Amino acid sequence: MKVSIERAALLKAVSQAQSVVERRNTIPILANVLIEAEGSDVTFRATDLDIEVVDSAPAQVERAGATTVSATTLHEIVRKLPDGALVSLTADSAAGRLTVEAGRSNFSLATLPKEDFPVMASSEYASNFTAGAAVLRRLFDKSKFAISTEETRYYLNGVYMHIADGDGGKMLRCVATDGHRLARIDADMPEGAADMAGVIVPRKTVGELRKLLDDDDMQIAVSVSETKVRFATPQITLTSKVIDGTFPDYTRVIPQGNTRKLEVDAADFAKAVDRVATVSSERSRAVKLQLDEDRLVLSVNAPDSGAAEEELAVAYADERLEIGFNAKYLLEIASQVDRENAVFLFNSSGDPTLMREGNDQSAVYVVMPMRV
Amino acid sequence: MKVSIERAALLKAVSQAQSVVERRNTIPILANVLIEAEGSDVTFRATDLDIEVVDSAPAQVERAGATTVSATTLHEIVRKLPDGALVSLTADSAAGRLTVEAGRSNFSLATLPKEDFPVMASSEYASNFTAGAAVLRRLFDKSKFAISTEETRYYLNGVYMHIADGDGGKMLRCVATDGHRLARIDADMPEGAADMAGVIVPRKTVGELRKLLDDDDMQIAVSVSETKVRFATPQITLTSKVIDGTFPDYTRVIPQGNTRKLEVDAADFAKAVDRVATVSSERSRAVKLQLDEDRLVLSVNAPDSGAAEEELAVAYADERLEIGFNAKYLLEIASQVDRENAVFLFNSSGDPTLMREGNDQSAVYVVMPMRV
Repeated sequence: MKVSIERAALLKAVSQAQSVVERRNTIPILANVLIEAEGSDVTFRATDLDIEVVDSAPAQVERAGATTVSATTLHEIVRKLPDGALVSLTADSAAGRLTVEAGRSNFSLATLPKEDFPVMASSEYASNFTAGAAVLRRLFDKSKFAISTEETRYYLNGVYMHIADGDGGKMLRCVATDGHRLARIDADMPEGAADMAGVIVPRKTVGELRKLLDDDDMQIAVSVSETKVRFATPQITLTSKVIDGTFPDYTRVIPQGNTRKLEVDAADFAKAVDRVATVSSERSRAVKLQLDEDRLVLSVNAPDSGAAEEELAVAYADERLEIGFNAKYLLEIASQVDRENAVFLFNSSGDPTLMREGNDQSAVYVVMPMRV
Repeated sequence: MKVSIERAALLKAVSQAQSVVERRNTIPILANVLIEAEGSDVTFRATDLDIEVVDSAPAQVERAGATTVSATTLHEIVRKLPDGALVSLTADSAAGRLTVEAGRSNFSLATLPKEDFPVMASSEYASNFTAGAAVLRRLFDKSKFAISTEETRYYLNGVYMHIADGDGGKMLRCVATDGHRLARIDADMPEGAADMAGVIVPRKTVGELRKLLDDDDMQIAVSVSETKVRFATPQITLTSKVIDGTFPDYTRVIPQGNTRKLEVDAADFAKAVDRVATVSSERSRAVKLQLDEDRLVLSVNAPDSGAAEEELAVAYADERLEIGFNAKYLLEIASQVDRENAVFLFNSSGDPTLMREGNDQSAVYVVMPMRV
């Protein structure tokens, strides 16, 4: 293998690939990236056995071929090369080395045989559709904060992407929950997605996917089978196993009869919660909300360190209510609000509370109260 | 105590004080800041028993007095208050609480009696002089990287500030070394400093001092005794114990007879060292320098992971030389160079190497070689 490639293109491709590689590997080949040169492209493939990223970049291929080298080392080298450099990669399979040359710099890296690299088996995908990057970004960005980190509840360690009946007909929906809070985000159903199997996209995959979604105008090809999900741009293909489990019936968690409505400026609310939570100890950051006519008092009482109270002018016309929440959960939910106003719908101080952005039903959050 | 103070002034004063407070304290009062209001000022005092910072801010003092509260909590609260807020601090010594009010926010913080706060004993300082912030910044910034972290060699855990005979007569000099590298930085001796006792300023004090030195035009009042050093601006006074030990005779470490002179662009050199070091394992990052007429080849050979080589055009007119260094030490020294060119003076591959910036003798670095 012998190729020349522009440093910026190489860096972009290698960055995406190396981020999938786990820092600590017991299997040496998993620390490596598989480099394959053919035609007028070089592809970089990395995997942790659950996720595979293939990134291709245009290159001048003098001699086709393939090899594998340490993803981290290659990434570090390319990152440190001067901007605008032309980088040549030459594999010497007899010596088991890959030579990286740029200007007066010359690196010789240990390789492992390309045959040892575990390429993910290709699959048949039952559903294939296209979605805009901005649409997918919203679906995952607004739901991922609620993903559970409890390993025993592995079926909650991801975002449940599926087709659901919404107010406006069938929707592409993402749901995540950890039992304490839940996010349910809807988007219009893309053409061809109607029969898609619901899949739980793992947390790490959601993180890697995010890097494909920065460009608003990009169209992402999505493929879904019962065991795998694939997201692809013209350059990058991200394939991931999905979580093998059943996502719980979340619809029963979303309260339907909450009638006590509070409307509050989302940014002011978040700042006030953040401030009053300061006096509390790390663990049980309980914030009490006292609601009265057009008046909200947030308070925290931590016997050891002190107490805090803050008043906000709000829109609230129902009867007096006191309810407590974990400050972190309240903050995270309030920070999801893109519009000015957050609308909370309460029932009693013991029931789950619903939050949405203004009257928009396409993003709904639920948070469990805590006793204060 | 009852005072009103502008949020920005309060934040600045509390920030400086709380940074001295250690995160983990077995003695509760050391987590607190002592607030004293009198006249038209409030002072904030914090200590770790080795360093004391006193920061004063103009305030409207309605009722003089003093109390202590958690430095971290107070800092967090003030940081989160809106810009431009007027903050009132009211101590209720009977209840053991300090009330912090701003706008519609109200905090009540647990206090500890002011009598329990360990105020550092005042000292007689034998030497008192004034130095510009920029002068002190250069002295400490350029030497601190060489401070030893080995706790057993406690007398190397700081910067040795003293008066020394330099080329241009008596100088104010800062020296730091960890046995592998050494930095010796000179400045003109300020008036009144001639009889100053040499003191070892501890690493943490150097870090805290740095925060006083951002303003080039600021004059810093320096006071030195055999056991303490004090740096003061009109607002802030930083007092620190000095390290009770004898700094070794560093003059013998600085080679005088090194004649083989290499001149190299400092930025290019640092980048090349950084690049070739990429292939090496974290631990023993040895970089080999091969010098030949006007030519420098940097190389690293790490049998497991690979090899790297880079050539630089340099000015070198002496005979062929091969010498190895720890990559980290070379990088740190090269990054001290403010001018374009770094000048290295070598003797043999087993002898300490001297580095300076161009022909400037006021900043001299020594680095020990390692076998490659």
